[in-house]
Amino acid sequence: MSTFGQFLRVTTYGESHCASVGCIVDNFPPGVPVSEEILQPQISRRRPGQSAISTPRNEADLVAIQSGVEGGVTLGTPIAMTVKNLDFRPSDYKGDTMKQYPRPSHADFTYLEKYGIKSASGGGRSSARETVGRVAAGALCEHYLKLAHGIEIVAWVSSVGRIHHIPPNTDYPSPSGNPEFLRLLETITREKVDEFLPVRCPDAKVATEMEQYIAGFRDRQDSIGGTVTCVIRNVPTGLGEPAFDKMEATLAHAMLSIPATKGFEFGSGFQGAEIPGSVHNDMFIRNSSIADDTDTSLKSGFAKPKLATSTNNSGGIQGGITNGSPIFFRVAFKSPATIGQAQKTVTYDGESDGFLEAKGRHDPCVVGRAVPIVEAMASLCIMDALLMQGARKMAAFTPSG
Amino acid sequence: MSTFGQFLRVTTYGESHCASVGCIVDNFPPGVPVSEEILQPQISRRRPGQSAISTPRNEADLVAIQSGVEGGVTLGTPIAMTVKNLDFRPSDYKGDTMKQYPRPSHADFTYLEKYGIKSASGGGRSSARETVGRVAAGALCEHYLKLAHGIEIVAWVSSVGRIHHIPPNTDYPSPSGNPEFLRLLETITREKVDEFLPVRCPDAKVATEMEQYIAGFRDRQDSIGGTVTCVIRNVPTGLGEPAFDKMEATLAHAMLSIPATKGFEFGSGFQGAEIPGSVHNDMFIRNSSIADDTDTSLKSGFAKPKLATSTNNSGGIQGGITNGSPIFFRVAFKSPATIGQAQKTVTYDGESDGFLEAKGRHDPCVVGRAVPIVEAMASLCIMDALLMQGARKMAAFTPSG
Amino acid sequence: MSTFGQFLRVTTYGESHCASVGCIVDNFPPGVPVSEEILQPQISRRRPGQSAISTPRNEADLVAIQSGVEGGVTLGTPIAMTVKNLDFRPSDYKGDTMKQYPRPSHADFTYLEKYGIKSASGGGRSSARETVGRVAAGALCEHYLKLAHGIEIVAWVSSVGRIHHIPPNTDYPSPSGNPEFLRLLETITREKVDEFLPVRCPDAKVATEMEQYIAGFRDRQDSIGGTVTCVIRNVPTGLGEPAFDKMEATLAHAMLSIPATKGFEFGSGFQGAEIPGSVHNDMFIRNSSIADDTDTSLKSGFAKPKLATSTNNSGGIQGGITNGSPIFFRVAFKSPATIGQAQKTVTYDGESDGFLEAKGRHDPCVVGRAVPIVEAMASLCIMDALLMQGARKMAAFTPSG
Amino acid sequence: MSTFGQFLRVTTYGESHCASVGCIVDNFPPGVPVSEEILQPQISRRRPGQSAISTPRNEADLVAIQSGVEGGVTLGTPIAMTVKNLDFRPSDYKGDTMKQYPRPSHADFTYLEKYGIKSASGGGRSSARETVGRVAAGALCEHYLKLAHGIEIVAWVSSVGRIHHIPPNTDYPSPSGNPEFLRLLETITREKVDEFLPVRCPDAKVATEMEQYIAGFRDRQDSIGGTVTCVIRNVPTGLGEPAFDKMEATLAHAMLSIPATKGFEFGSGFQGAEIPGSVHNDMFIRNSSIADDTDTSLKSGFAKPKLATSTNNSGGIQGGITNGSPIFFRVAFKSPATIGQAQKTVTYDGESDGFLEAKGRHDPCVVGRAVPIVEAMASLCIMDALLMQGARKMAAFTPSG
Repeated sequence: MSTFGQFLRVTTYGESHCASVGCIVDNFPPGVPVSEEILQPQISRRRPGQSAISTPRNEADLVAIQSGVEGGVTLGTPIAMTVKNLDFRPSDYKGDTMKQYPRPSHADFTYLEKYGIKSASGGGRSSARETVGRVAAGALCEHYLKLAHGIEIVAWVSSVGRIHHIPPNTDYPSPSGNPEFLRLLETITREKVDEFLPVRCPDAKVATEMEQYIAGFRDRQDSIGGTVTCVIRNVPTGLGEPAFDKMEATLAHAMLSIPATKGFEFGSGFQGAEIPGSVHNDMFIRNSSIADDTDTSLKSGFAKPKLATSTNNSGGIQGGITNGSPIFFRVAFKSPATIGQAQKTVTYDGESDGFLEAKGRHDPCVVGRAVPIVEAMASLCIMDALLMQGARKMAAFTPSG
Repeated sequence: MSTFGQFLRVTTYGESHCASVGCIVDNFPPGVPVSEEILQPQISRRRPGQSAISTPRNEADLVAIQSGVEGGVTLGTPIAMTVKNLDFRPSDYKGDTMKQYPRPSHADFTYLEKYGIKSASGGGRSSARETVGRVAAGALCEHYLKLAHGIEIVAWVSSVGRIHHIPPNTDYPSPSGNPEFLRLLETITREKVDEFLPVRCPDAKVATEMEQYIAGFRDRQDSIGGTVTCVIRNVPTGLGEPAFDKMEATLAHAMLSIPATKGFEFGSGFQGAEIPGSVHNDMFIRNSSIADDTDTSLKSGFAKPKLATSTNNSGGIQGGITNGSPIFFRVAFKSPATIGQAQKTVTYDGESDGFLEAKGRHDPCVVGRAVPIVEAMASLCIMDALLMQGARKMAAFTPSG
Repeated sequence: MSTFGQFLRVTTYGESHCASVGCIVDNFPPGVPVSEEILQPQISRRRPGQSAISTPRNEADLVAIQSGVEGGVTLGTPIAMTVKNLDFRPSDYKGDTMKQYPRPSHADFTYLEKYGIKSASGGGRSSARETVGRVAAGALCEHYLKLAHGIEIVAWVSSVGRIHHIPPNTDYPSPSGNPEFLRLLETITREKVDEFLPVRCPDAKVATEMEQYIAGFRDRQDSIGGTVTCVIRNVPTGLGEPAFDKMEATLAHAMLSIPATKGFEFGSGFQGAEIPGSVHNDMFIRNSSIADDTDTSLKSGFAKPKLATSTNNSGGIQGGITNGSPIFFRVAFKSPATIGQAQKTVTYDGESDGFLEAKGRHDPCVVGRAVPIVEAMASLCIMDALLMQGARKMAAFTPSG
Repeated sequence: MSTFGQFLRVTTYGESHCASVGCIVDNFPPGVPVSEEILQPQISRRRPGQSAISTPRNEADLVAIQSGVEGGVTLGTPIAMTVKNLDFRPSDYKGDTMKQYPRPSHADFTYLEKYGIKSASGGGRSSARETVGRVAAGALCEHYLKLAHGIEIVAWVSSVGRIHHIPPNTDYPSPSGNPEFLRLLETITREKVDEFLPVRCPDAKVATEMEQYIAGFRDRQDSIGGTVTCVIRNVPTGLGEPAFDKMEATLAHAMLSIPATKGFEFGSGFQGAEIPGSVHNDMFIRNSSIADDTDTSLKSGFAKPKLATSTNNSGGIQGGITNGSPIFFRVAFKSPATIGQAQKTVTYDGESDGFLEAKGRHDPCVVGRAVPIVEAMASLCIMDALLMQGARKMAAFTPSG
């Protein structure tokens, strides 16, 4: 399906080579100040061509609000947004080889199996181009979450190939127990992350190392993957819908719907399977930040909780429901399938062998550009859960005294 | 939400201490021979108390079909199934401490934050008891998938704590490239897995080691986690719905909705982020098994594809759509939160500190019992995707000659 | 689909001849006092056999809550309810004729066309028996709506065949303009309606006339239809979701999903097409009842509106959204298809003609029993819309001063 | 919600005064030849300004396909369509009176109650402008239904005020029994309907009478309503999803979601409540048209049924499922709320009385323009049901011999 969310519903459209890409965001709250200027930065952050190591295709990607906003304020009606496909050059993809051969580890073959037809560019909707609509919708939601609830969502590159920002070590097999990582969760900002373009790993030394590492793959006409970590701060308690729409389940769904992803883990993650319960359990303590309760949280109807935890292996989610601690998770992206090296393949009918080699320049590593996409999808999950919990809060019965 | 799936919709109900748990399966195909005898084995496989190292609570868990089946055949109408909660002893949970203190890393606190009320047993729907309905629905779907499409779904324990069945090594950083693992994907059966009860790791030596390892945690009144790997064989091509309901996205959603899960990866997984594209790409080859095309696949309307791949880092999914290769994925389960050791905690109102210690006996490791739950959730994803692709196949327009 | 509602989701199961019928109600608010005693009356009101003119089959229909309620209070988790099919006599339906011939204007033929199989009783899920689950869910919702919002839902029989409770006349072509009808909307109660069992038309003279009229059809082994009118009082403003889920649209959907219905109209209805705009428009006036604003409406977060209308041709809904005036609508039920007269038919294969005649006794008129079903479906629509509007109210952004 | 449909999902956006209106159609079948030229005619048919008696605002309304179509053929991916709002003159609506007073029987008041904000034009999404996106989506679906299944959908004006095309009479209280009406169902075409512009009542004498009748209301600065009847021919059997999504239920939902509608009836409709069962029942007969089974129906996988009925009081639907006979229904539209006469009203705050009178020229009767909207919504219902039944047909289990 091309719709995400139960109450806050985002529907995207578009592929690489059509008139425009975009989305409709339904059930967005009324009364929110919104403009294209507010939304554009995130869309620009996902653009290719932000540095020498990423693809030079220039996609201006200007978002245009079609509906649902009047006088700079949302009406509560569907907000449609479009981004024109300016750089529409289908001929780039129309070589004879691409007609005959499915590209390895691309979606050319599976789209043809699914639909019996495919776009000239291969698996059109599996292209990263589809994510423009997601980022537009996400920019809208992130804006609301910050404005109305003080929620902050920040993602960054935590590894490229074998280079990890904060590698696991004996003391801290999972970053969820590592004080350095936990401090980062509290302090990291998008501005800080963007200081380290194009790799977006918030550590000068590691970022330089990653950049050189990626350049090596580029020079060998090869590619490399990486991981993106994301934190969501100031999330109210009570978000997430048992049993099937636990907060981590919709986040996992959202992240694995991003092209090229291979895995998702939250809190202690896969390492959590190796930490004994006596260490892994997060002990409850009094929430010392209640005193600081801001106007925002009071106005929003979501009061701060009385309890916090002394550790956060739970990644801010217990029993599928947010507990008020920062939510954090990590997403794995595979190495891009498009590489300059010649690769052996076979024709669609299985009759003849042949070779495919990508023409032009292609991203040797996409994780830097994936950062705003991860943030966008996270914001859709949080906002949908927040609206549903709002319905429940309004409906909860309190007998009169 | 308590409903999973877009077309094949499963709605579950029930918590630890109520009259029954169960589910309604909507849009299940008509004409399928079904009986309680066919469904019971999977429900029995998830029962606790299958050996000395798991919890001794006896839950007979007999499934009773309420509707949708007449004369041993499905009618196409909703199939409701119930399992009585025989061993209903709420007093086990009604100690003074449990009323005053939220258990660490349980859902007691978050359920209270979400609903303003909670069941005596804590986070009722976050209990493993809720999964009975899922397994009943899954048993139904697995039965259909095998019967009508020859699809086989087998899960097993791939690690307990630090003991891995097939550990990553220098040659094969991801099991997806390991020939031993790939052979296992082709041959593993549920019968084989159950030879190694209670740990369900299909290797005599490793299983014994795991059993002793778990016993150590039990003796220390501690607990340990693990991972479950699952393979789905004979999946037709074309399943999975772009852009948001990619096959891996719904699988990730399904798996992370299982209690105590911390992560999901498919194909090369997190290691895939570290393997260069030139190695990671799965080369297309002619599908040699077309000649063996069975009666089942012909009858089903889903023909076997002309192409296969020589490797399977994609885990059977490309661009969110199945390519006919085995789907495989791995799910991380944290160490159970309930342990016999006394743990420091604080009262719900944050006013007083105290200690909680679990009474009675509790599972020191749940991954063995998670096996049929993982299989069940996998079957719901595959069946839903298969029905949706069926709609598309019926609707695809073929102009007349 | 067997699920109704977007946020408050009701899934029903069961047909005439299976172990039980029932439902799961998902996302019902937590903290609501609920018991089987509170729910049973509505389920009993839809029972057949309440008088000489309705069918004598005895269906005890005792509702049993399976989950979601603990200590007499809802937990916020799914509430499953079951009603056993005690009077399970499939042999009643298993005559040779029913196997060979589809009954005219029943669902035997269409169920077979749809599913390729059908239950022994014909179109199992199209049976009135399926509505038991709806009424159980509705009883739950009506209870909440009354308790938390003071909303009252009352339906009654407004016509049987050609006998109308308040016939249209020259002065008042639509009842929506008739002062007698408008007074009835304000005052009618379920207790009053049930004084006129079995026909449930709240006028002694007309009820008697209807009863004799129906008896005539019964004696001729024939049947007759009728209409049910329903009012919903004290509905908050702002309910109903543009564009597709306007309040009248979901009500129409709900009503036409009840077996044997043929039409739906609200407010001025079909007559509204014949009344000039200058007469039909409902003029806004100051809402004089604000002063009476009750504790309930203040607590609920849905304040009473400042404006009312002097007439109510809109039926309480404008632009698909409730305006605070009583919602009222009318539903047409056809004459029951099952009659004692022999009817000419043809075998399923179309090869041979034959005759069918219903054995035993059957309802010559069902509208009296339809009353609680109409109320139940109305309550599902209102409650779903109310929860969704609750989400919006919580989310609406109010900039700080 | 702004999305309609379970599998074939249409999401619309836009209000009177924004950049564009439009829709995204998800899950449309692949391989269908589609162009803007094919879609434009239906969009043009709903345009205002088609004659002297309708509003003179000129809305060019050119549809532009944004995605999902390549080389003139659908890809199976979402099809986005936009129509620019050329005639954007918000000042028309920004008079002082409209700011102060809610217009009677418009959605100004209810939108403000719902969203706490409203567009300058009043209830933006309740405007007929919103229906452009529906008609675009409908044009796409009608095209497919005709091409792939031979399904024909034709609507026409069956009454304006008290002037009925085929008035009920003693012999035929419901048109469903009237031979003249039944012949019309078999033969009526859109071309025929459009011969009688602007009223679209397919009878020269009645159409002229209606036109003069409407002109009278226009001259008195008043307005009048009417009804639209619609037939759907060549529908396969088996469409419609028990229990809640019966074919008539989704049609009723669809129709009552069109602005200004007041009622829906199908088959014998409200009159069906007054016809005895012995007359109302539709007797099964052998389907004589099987011999004519066309290539289309064979290819489509939906074979023609063996049985037909001798009458069609069921309106083509039994037990919520299509039986292969023509589906027909009637929709009531109220008299337009916007009239030139001064109407007494009150300010939003309820403090001061005042008068509102519409400036400029407005439609005195909208039913003629409603015809393509009714057809569009009907096509969405049928296509969604057809795709879902396709999924079931593909999944139905047939044991091997």
